[in-house]
Amino acid sequence: MSAGEDPSQQLVVDVFARGCTSRAAFEDVTGRWASLVLLALGEGRYRFNALRRRVEGVSEKMLSQTLQALERDGMLTREVVTAIPPRVEYELTPLGAGVAQRLRALADLLEERAGEVQRAREAHAAAR
Amino acid sequence: MSAGEDPSQQLVVDVFARGCTSRAAFEDVTGRWASLVLLALGEGRYRFNALRRRVEGVSEKMLSQTLQALERDGMLTREVVTAIPPRVEYELTPLGAGVAQRLRALADLLEERAGEVQRAREAHAAAR
Repeated sequence: MSAGEDPSQQLVVDVFARGCTSRAAFEDVTGRWASLVLLALGEGRYRFNALRRRVEGVSEKMLSQTLQALERDGMLTREVVTAIPPRVEYELTPLGAGVAQRLRALADLLEERAGEVQRAREAHAAAR
Repeated sequence: MSAGEDPSQQLVVDVFARGCTSRAAFEDVTGRWASLVLLALGEGRYRFNALRRRVEGVSEKMLSQTLQALERDGMLTREVVTAIPPRVEYELTPLGAGVAQRLRALADLLEERAGEVQRAREAHAAAR
């Protein structure tokens, strides 16, 4: 963000600008594991271990760090459910749900067009 | 992808599945620099150096690697324009344009809601 002369333009929020909160948030939600965690939570509440199974390949440590960063950005809430044994559940906030919806639109496109990506890779490999 | 019993379900394309092309493509387009490069090219054709200025903070090496990976996935084309001096221009394919459009929807949301992310971070820091 940077200050401008027109008061209505005082905060320039630009995802391309280093140091802008929107760029940091964009990097956080598109991170290696964060994007898959957000997609999973877009399906509903998850407990830690169920989430870890849904996001194939994520380690306990990486999942934990990813959840903390997304909580810090206001994308999800962490709830300790009183039960025996107690359990921890994660749920998207309205902001997180909006982000997840947009990531889902991106994932849908790539799932639909996976064949096209595959053919592009094969053509690229053959041309080398 | 994995084979199913129903022929209409033979290819399960799932962004959550390790080894699925759609997951690899999703990871490529949401990568650290790739997402910003796609957003920039969503604005139009770019020459290498102009693109480097648009995507604040990217190094020459990282931009070069990112462009190669996106070209391999069929997201963009690289054109050598005959001129003095010759120049190289990058342009999205229709698939890349679709991806860029969805990333732009995500970036728009985060630009609109940057204040909410900032307040969440402040509240989180204060609660620690």
